[in-house]
Amino acid sequence: MARFLKNITSKIGQPPGALIYTGHHFEEKIKVTAFGYGEHDLEEKEINSFEEIIACKDQYPNIWINMDGLQDTALIEQICSHFQVHALTIEDILHPEQRPKVEEGEGYIYVVLKMLKYVGQGQMVDAEQVSVILGSNFVLSFQERPGDTFESVRNRLRGGKGRIRRSGADYLMYALMDTIVDHYFLILEKSGDLLEDLEEALLTSSSKSSLHTLYALKREMLAVRRVVWPLREVIYKLEREEYKLIKKSTHIYLRDIYDHVIQVIDTVETIRDMLASMFDLYQSTLSNRMNAIMKVLTIISTIFIPLTFIAGVYGMNFQYMPELEWPYGYPAVWGLMLMIVLGMFVFFKRKGWL
Amino acid sequence: MARFLKNITSKIGQPPGALIYTGHHFEEKIKVTAFGYGEHDLEEKEINSFEEIIACKDQYPNIWINMDGLQDTALIEQICSHFQVHALTIEDILHPEQRPKVEEGEGYIYVVLKMLKYVGQGQMVDAEQVSVILGSNFVLSFQERPGDTFESVRNRLRGGKGRIRRSGADYLMYALMDTIVDHYFLILEKSGDLLEDLEEALLTSSSKSSLHTLYALKREMLAVRRVVWPLREVIYKLEREEYKLIKKSTHIYLRDIYDHVIQVIDTVETIRDMLASMFDLYQSTLSNRMNAIMKVLTIISTIFIPLTFIAGVYGMNFQYMPELEWPYGYPAVWGLMLMIVLGMFVFFKRKGWL
Amino acid sequence: MARFLKNITSKIGQPPGALIYTGHHFEEKIKVTAFGYGEHDLEEKEINSFEEIIACKDQYPNIWINMDGLQDTALIEQICSHFQVHALTIEDILHPEQRPKVEEGEGYIYVVLKMLKYVGQGQMVDAEQVSVILGSNFVLSFQERPGDTFESVRNRLRGGKGRIRRSGADYLMYALMDTIVDHYFLILEKSGDLLEDLEEALLTSSSKSSLHTLYALKREMLAVRRVVWPLREVIYKLEREEYKLIKKSTHIYLRDIYDHVIQVIDTVETIRDMLASMFDLYQSTLSNRMNAIMKVLTIISTIFIPLTFIAGVYGMNFQYMPELEWPYGYPAVWGLMLMIVLGMFVFFKRKGWL
Amino acid sequence: MARFLKNITSKIGQPPGALIYTGHHFEEKIKVTAFGYGEHDLEEKEINSFEEIIACKDQYPNIWINMDGLQDTALIEQICSHFQVHALTIEDILHPEQRPKVEEGEGYIYVVLKMLKYVGQGQMVDAEQVSVILGSNFVLSFQERPGDTFESVRNRLRGGKGRIRRSGADYLMYALMDTIVDHYFLILEKSGDLLEDLEEALLTSSSKSSLHTLYALKREMLAVRRVVWPLREVIYKLEREEYKLIKKSTHIYLRDIYDHVIQVIDTVETIRDMLASMFDLYQSTLSNRMNAIMKVLTIISTIFIPLTFIAGVYGMNFQYMPELEWPYGYPAVWGLMLMIVLGMFVFFKRKGWL
Amino acid sequence: MARFLKNITSKIGQPPGALIYTGHHFEEKIKVTAFGYGEHDLEEKEINSFEEIIACKDQYPNIWINMDGLQDTALIEQICSHFQVHALTIEDILHPEQRPKVEEGEGYIYVVLKMLKYVGQGQMVDAEQVSVILGSNFVLSFQERPGDTFESVRNRLRGGKGRIRRSGADYLMYALMDTIVDHYFLILEKSGDLLEDLEEALLTSSSKSSLHTLYALKREMLAVRRVVWPLREVIYKLEREEYKLIKKSTHIYLRDIYDHVIQVIDTVETIRDMLASMFDLYQSTLSNRMNAIMKVLTIISTIFIPLTFIAGVYGMNFQYMPELEWPYGYPAVWGLMLMIVLGMFVFFKRKGWL
Repeated sequence: MARFLKNITSKIGQPPGALIYTGHHFEEKIKVTAFGYGEHDLEEKEINSFEEIIACKDQYPNIWINMDGLQDTALIEQICSHFQVHALTIEDILHPEQRPKVEEGEGYIYVVLKMLKYVGQGQMVDAEQVSVILGSNFVLSFQERPGDTFESVRNRLRGGKGRIRRSGADYLMYALMDTIVDHYFLILEKSGDLLEDLEEALLTSSSKSSLHTLYALKREMLAVRRVVWPLREVIYKLEREEYKLIKKSTHIYLRDIYDHVIQVIDTVETIRDMLASMFDLYQSTLSNRMNAIMKVLTIISTIFIPLTFIAGVYGMNFQYMPELEWPYGYPAVWGLMLMIVLGMFVFFKRKGWL
Repeated sequence: MARFLKNITSKIGQPPGALIYTGHHFEEKIKVTAFGYGEHDLEEKEINSFEEIIACKDQYPNIWINMDGLQDTALIEQICSHFQVHALTIEDILHPEQRPKVEEGEGYIYVVLKMLKYVGQGQMVDAEQVSVILGSNFVLSFQERPGDTFESVRNRLRGGKGRIRRSGADYLMYALMDTIVDHYFLILEKSGDLLEDLEEALLTSSSKSSLHTLYALKREMLAVRRVVWPLREVIYKLEREEYKLIKKSTHIYLRDIYDHVIQVIDTVETIRDMLASMFDLYQSTLSNRMNAIMKVLTIISTIFIPLTFIAGVYGMNFQYMPELEWPYGYPAVWGLMLMIVLGMFVFFKRKGWL
Repeated sequence: MARFLKNITSKIGQPPGALIYTGHHFEEKIKVTAFGYGEHDLEEKEINSFEEIIACKDQYPNIWINMDGLQDTALIEQICSHFQVHALTIEDILHPEQRPKVEEGEGYIYVVLKMLKYVGQGQMVDAEQVSVILGSNFVLSFQERPGDTFESVRNRLRGGKGRIRRSGADYLMYALMDTIVDHYFLILEKSGDLLEDLEEALLTSSSKSSLHTLYALKREMLAVRRVVWPLREVIYKLEREEYKLIKKSTHIYLRDIYDHVIQVIDTVETIRDMLASMFDLYQSTLSNRMNAIMKVLTIISTIFIPLTFIAGVYGMNFQYMPELEWPYGYPAVWGLMLMIVLGMFVFFKRKGWL
Repeated sequence: MARFLKNITSKIGQPPGALIYTGHHFEEKIKVTAFGYGEHDLEEKEINSFEEIIACKDQYPNIWINMDGLQDTALIEQICSHFQVHALTIEDILHPEQRPKVEEGEGYIYVVLKMLKYVGQGQMVDAEQVSVILGSNFVLSFQERPGDTFESVRNRLRGGKGRIRRSGADYLMYALMDTIVDHYFLILEKSGDLLEDLEEALLTSSSKSSLHTLYALKREMLAVRRVVWPLREVIYKLEREEYKLIKKSTHIYLRDIYDHVIQVIDTVETIRDMLASMFDLYQSTLSNRMNAIMKVLTIISTIFIPLTFIAGVYGMNFQYMPELEWPYGYPAVWGLMLMIVLGMFVFFKRKGWL
Repeated sequence: MARFLKNITSKIGQPPGALIYTGHHFEEKIKVTAFGYGEHDLEEKEINSFEEIIACKDQYPNIWINMDGLQDTALIEQICSHFQVHALTIEDILHPEQRPKVEEGEGYIYVVLKMLKYVGQGQMVDAEQVSVILGSNFVLSFQERPGDTFESVRNRLRGGKGRIRRSGADYLMYALMDTIVDHYFLILEKSGDLLEDLEEALLTSSSKSSLHTLYALKREMLAVRRVVWPLREVIYKLEREEYKLIKKSTHIYLRDIYDHVIQVIDTVETIRDMLASMFDLYQSTLSNRMNAIMKVLTIISTIFIPLTFIAGVYGMNFQYMPELEWPYGYPAVWGLMLMIVLGMFVFFKRKGWL
């Protein structure tokens, strides 16, 4: 859970610009793919050495280099240096604990995004850092771990229809961002289903597992919130500030993402509000059940304890106990007990406990 | 409950501008009506094909086309294209999960509104998306599902009195918006009635059903809030920003709606505050009842348990128990018991439990 | 309680400007009084027809017409039209569910205020709408129900001392507003007394009636808040915006009211904070009492239940029970019991329950 | 507690500017002292009549007149009129329920401050209003009740060292304000001590007195907050707005007070946060104790109640009960009971209750 | 805990600029070190007298004087005066209860920072004040207590690589600030570990120690928050306002710290949110356990209390009790008891308690 605090401190005491990867080290090899594309042609290849990138760079109007895995810091530095990315930016790419942000460098825009995914059965949301660098005719994207996050974008590029091949690198960056934001809705939809189940469960009973689901959802919403609020600001800046690298025609698409992010925020806050209401409901249901349990205990006890006492009295062995010798002593005691039961019954009725 | 999250994800991976209807599919056929009107004449007809719209379009100073149902995406696209509505706007019309917003297109203003209605017996509030497109001399309105929402506007048009026939398309849009906001008051009035009943119920008892009503009202207010806060901004923009399509004389009416929306917000927040107070009241009442129950149990137990013990003692079968043979043993035990009862009585009195 | 939602909906579907009174209908006749006044002379008369108003209008430098009751919509419309008040403003006068607001019309300023009063024994705060229209030389004031709210202003006019006769209509409006704000302090003072009593009650016991008082005060503060926050904005506008109808010399008095409103807000928020603290105190006191009750029950039970068991054992009728025949069996059992009691005593002492 | 609401209403219905003292009437006579001072000389005298003030006024570069007690409204009016203080300002001086504020009059600045002091044993914080009027070469200060609040300032004047004698009246006003703010730290320090004791108490037990201390501290912090937040604004204005009466060289000292006020606010908010945490801690500790109590009761009951039942069974007097005649019946019953106890023991162990 | 309130009041009544050290007095001697450095050379020496500082001052392009301990007010004043630091600034250095702030003096910038450290086993966070004065070619730093906080900066200076030796005094100040902010992450990481352990503990049981850890973490987060929020403003000012002493090239590094501070704030707020959720979880788990305990008690009691009563009845010694003489009386009673047990079982099953 406290993953968001891990590995932060390994850099303490280092001078700024020290290129050390502080994220999780996956065993797989880093995978680099390059897409050179223009309106009419497209080349897609997996890359094994830095030289191959240089080779493919200037053949096409636009090039998109995507890296899965950040372990190979040397290669990343080599590529970034080639595209004249500042050392501090490279440092940020390698520290996957950044908040979403946008920074303008010389000749490029650097955007930090967070991909959200479900991991394991505990329905925990995991955030993966995705760094995107937009240059005049190139996009570099860095993902923390392997995965097919951007497969839909690749397919649209391969298909060659729609705006994506005709437009420049800024539109490609938009497409990547859009894909990431779309995935947030997946998280929200799954959470919404859980919420619906939870509500039904709460209105009928209040088991311990409901409480844990409630808690898990709260934590999830915190994770989404942490990612989405700063993203809102990022997209706002991209749309409003006059970055030269982003064409006017792309603004309308950024506004579209902005609307989506606002929708995500709105939904997250609504879910949080509902969770708070549900927690109150849970607490009250617990109290209600406690009341019900206590009522049963109290009714049984207050009826039988006096009766048991009476039975006890006539079980005493005193030599002189006149009642014991009365012929109607035994039925009289039963009568007395019946009267007590009836009295109690009336009392509980009046209290509204029956 | 999580309806607000449904169908969002079906579009993931699609390029922007893909025209797929993501809302609920109703069985009824889509119903299109056209109102051509000027100060002196009015034509109203139900429309079955796109050609009929073209035919009736230029005969009157203003035309209002209303569509109930969004399933027929082809027709909607045809109509919108005819009125030169942008593809992204059409996409928004077809995705009924938009937040209320206003967008300016070329030659038109696009407004997303939410109609609120009660559905079923569970008093759940349901939000239906209403899209309105205002052009220089036309209004297009799109409703998710059939219904007589705008019947009062139609009647005013038919009646021909008042400003509505004399004024332009912008005044018609105002009239549609006004109708929608007026319906919010219906929701609030019904909620207010429930609130009043609930308060009375809480001040006397605290049943489980009160808790569920409380919870349902909280959820409802969340739904209204979600719709009204962004609407406030929408109307603020329409009134303040200098849209050419909205005449100066219409501004005073928009300010009137703005006042209404503020009133709705104010009322929603007040109801929320009252619900919070009521929940506290409910919780405390539960605790109070628990205390009362426990007090009864404790009084009965602490009085009779010691007495039962004494009776038990003299029920023992030891051969040598001198008390049993005393002539006044039995009355003495009764005396002892009486003293214990009196002592307990004093104790409870001093504790304030009786 | 939900009075603030009543009668709102009766207007739904009406065109704007429809003059229907939506408030409560009182049986008494509407009462109209006119005050014509200048620095040196004053005429005060009750008015029965519209013509009388016309007659008295131009005789004095300033005229104040006050109406108690809004049932006679025809008369109100006649008067307002005479003073060239806009139809939308008249509509607002007749709908007493407005929030406090200020609007500038042509040749007049329209201010909506709320008079707060205690009604009935349940100490419920009731809000009455007071509309004030300020013209160059006239003030029209409309109250929902009869009452002597403005008697102190009338007396100051009659007395003829002070600024009120020397100053113009804007100063009269200030005097009316000041009277209304002063009455808020009455509500607060009474609430403060209740609060003081409540606190004392809570620090000693925690009865159910305290809870109800707490709840009632919370609701009251909500009602005051609802009225005062928008009023703050109203007065701020009146003071800061350059309304021609309000003379410079009146600004210092408006600032004085502004200070009072801020004081009211400050007090309301403080009372709300204190009520929240008191509720916490109440809840904890309840829990404390529950603990005390349970402790008594537990002590009595855990002492006597084992003893009763022992007595039960030696009450069994087995033929072969050697202890029963021991000569010191009975005293030995008493000894055992004593030891158990002492052991429990030590146990409870160590737990800190005694 | 509701002192902050007292005496507010006695002025209702009065015209503005009515000079009535609405605070508490102390029995002691009002005490007036005048300090005339320049860099090299100083005269300090107690004043009995208005004429003495006139006499001493123009002898020194600066004069400071301090009044303890506000009962003598006539004298206050006389003095204020002499220094050309506006009637509305005099009214504010006489109504000690003002919030801290700064107002510019013609030729003077009027500042309302609040002195905080502990009163009685209940550790209640009491706020006394201190009004300060700064003119070009005079300072008038009005305190509600007698006390040695400004003794340290007097001593610095008498000592004649430091800036205070060399600087003008504005520096004297700063010195008075600084003294008042310094006293807030006294309140905070005492509250901090209580807080520390309280925390220690809460971590070990949770007595009722802790709850009352918690509540008292909450109330105190509300009182300090009420005074400090508006003061922040006052000092901000004094420092930023270009008041002619305040020299540039005094600004750095006002900024110093501003820092102190921010520190007070910061501390108050931190204490409030800690109190909230402590209340949660208290509540949970209570619940924990309840659990512990109930556990003891449940363990004892569930062990002995079945045993007592068994003993009861063999205490029955049926003629035909074969077990009673078995030679090993009695030891067998003991064995059964032992088994039950062991079974319960295992059950409780598994539940984690032992 | 209330350490943050200690020693504040010892200064009350003093004139401004009084140089009294109000912090904790450590026994160790104050330790002063000087670093004179330029791009190519470096001198580091421990300083024992004021004269040594003068001697070393102008030999190098930049000089950094660091003081551990603030007891020797005379020396501090001497040094500060030499570097023309204002008396009010020296006063702030000596009062370690300042909030983080930045102030511009004549020829220098004064920055107050807070170093956070864990102290003792109670995991309490302690804040130490660090004052930094930046001049054109010197940096003075004052720490409250001895420690190796800045050892990493010293090592970078000694190493001579990287920007630190080439850059001016402003970069050195940045390096000091960066070191302090980096240490905040240490606190957060440790808190994150505690949080993780705590969560695991809460999801399985709910011991008292979890509650105390929860409380301790809450308090810690308050302490970090108190320090970090004002720091954010400090760095914002340093980056945005055009201080002449800070070179343009240093701005990018300040923005880097700013990002870190935002990250710290974000993490603190997330931890606070999680703690709140965990507290709710804890409370509910307690209630759940109480319910479980009560259920056991109720089941055992309601089953055996009626049975015991029946046994009691047939233990009575009435002479005429026909059942006792029936041959099948005893088995019949057992049958009755069995039926009761079965009935109860069905009842509990239906209630969902088994």
